[in-house]
Amino acid sequence: MQFENELKRSAERVEAVLAAIVAETAEETPAHLLAAMRHGLLGGGKRLRPFLAMASARLFGIDEARSARTAAALECVHCYSLIHDDLPSMDDDDMRRGRPAAHILFGEAAAVLAGDALLTLAFEILADPRTHADAAVRAELVLDLARAAGGRGMAGGQMLDLDAEGTVSDEAAVTRMQAMKTGALIVFGCAVGAILAKAGRAERDRLARYGEALGAAFQICDDLLDREASMQEMGKATGKDAEAGKATLITLLGVEDARARLASLIDAAKEALEPFGDQAAQLRAAADFVMTRRR
Amino acid sequence: MQFENELKRSAERVEAVLAAIVAETAEETPAHLLAAMRHGLLGGGKRLRPFLAMASARLFGIDEARSARTAAALECVHCYSLIHDDLPSMDDDDMRRGRPAAHILFGEAAAVLAGDALLTLAFEILADPRTHADAAVRAELVLDLARAAGGRGMAGGQMLDLDAEGTVSDEAAVTRMQAMKTGALIVFGCAVGAILAKAGRAERDRLARYGEALGAAFQICDDLLDREASMQEMGKATGKDAEAGKATLITLLGVEDARARLASLIDAAKEALEPFGDQAAQLRAAADFVMTRRR
Repeated sequence: MQFENELKRSAERVEAVLAAIVAETAEETPAHLLAAMRHGLLGGGKRLRPFLAMASARLFGIDEARSARTAAALECVHCYSLIHDDLPSMDDDDMRRGRPAAHILFGEAAAVLAGDALLTLAFEILADPRTHADAAVRAELVLDLARAAGGRGMAGGQMLDLDAEGTVSDEAAVTRMQAMKTGALIVFGCAVGAILAKAGRAERDRLARYGEALGAAFQICDDLLDREASMQEMGKATGKDAEAGKATLITLLGVEDARARLASLIDAAKEALEPFGDQAAQLRAAADFVMTRRR
Repeated sequence: MQFENELKRSAERVEAVLAAIVAETAEETPAHLLAAMRHGLLGGGKRLRPFLAMASARLFGIDEARSARTAAALECVHCYSLIHDDLPSMDDDDMRRGRPAAHILFGEAAAVLAGDALLTLAFEILADPRTHADAAVRAELVLDLARAAGGRGMAGGQMLDLDAEGTVSDEAAVTRMQAMKTGALIVFGCAVGAILAKAGRAERDRLARYGEALGAAFQICDDLLDREASMQEMGKATGKDAEAGKATLITLLGVEDARARLASLIDAAKEALEPFGDQAAQLRAAADFVMTRRR
């Protein structure tokens, strides 16, 4: 419960930073586009990725005042991806976070452009001297986020996910797709602290290991929740992914083995944090949260 | 004619750099997405924006070996915008550069994602140490390109353009839309040399003036060509924009006054180049080319 309060407080901070950044651009941005951007960006959500970014920064003694802009840039990329994923030509979802999707409220063209503009804004934020005084750090943030978000990362993972419908996938294919689609941004978030602090290779690698395990765990948990929600809401044992003919680790391993995999991923995530000691309490709590969350 | 050869040679160079950059990512990018990215990126075109970037770099003694990656990043943004603009929900064009549009060949989802991935790749290129040794320069390239491409720039201009259909627009509205939609990337291209060379404010302002005039001239020329093509191909005096109920400077000013505006913009563009002397021969020739081009 303490963690959920912490997450909520962190989400409010990120929301405020995002709102301020968008407000700076408001005068010069067409109203229709701005409204779609705000809808997609400021609609709540757990804000887990920016939380991880700010928590990883705290490992190195960097407070939220100095990590919140980077966290906000990461959330811009996440929100752009949700807007585009919801498009009729993609996952075709009409609802998002309990509200109509951007393309329902503002039209498909505005949704495409709002996603484009938020993705672009992420890099504008990172390259701005207010994000970090050292230009080498800013350039590295841009480089690493671009790699995580592009064709080799999130966008590529979404392509694999769409193309997987109705085809036979094995565990390796599902794991790769999830590492790209969901994992890459989470790994970036966990690396933010090390980049901002110009930490050494060993610390970066540890945080990457934490992030990879957390991202994989997050996805299994999502699949478990998807399955349970379907059982409750639809009174049957198949979830949305199963209906769409998509393999998940649940369909491939079965619920019991998937739960065991989830637990061992959480252990691996925590183990990677050991050398950070008490400083890593927040990230450790995040790992527990991922395993036990109910939504 | 000499200029057109120069432009062709420059386009081939950019095409080769783009192909090499995409090849670097090929192994890790899903094949479906990669094919759509390649189609949108390597399909020819005049490559005017990267030409301007490399020509502006030459003003400061920076050769193409050191400016081509920045030029390639700019072209990634231009190509992503064409892919997204052609989508059914946007301009709904089935053909581009004499070939089927990306969404026709690869499906709408792959086209959305290919655009997303190319936009992301642009920033990955700029932030890479191979683009410039000085991280401050790389960060500035990212910042300026993001501003030019985002909601206050190109993406915002496309929104204004889509929303302008069937509404009454005045000259100020059309000029603003065009400055955002087409002008901003051209202005960035013209500024590239000054950024790479860490030139002073005065030189940057000159290049911005050149780029603004050139961009506006480019758009008038496009509108004139659109009108003439329609007269020839469809045997009537209204072009595609006029059919769509969109105001252009041609419909607002008439052909004669639009031509006069075009000529005075070209004069202004060349005037901004005067202090650069003979070094600016290529950029001067580019201005003449924009006024006289037939396609």
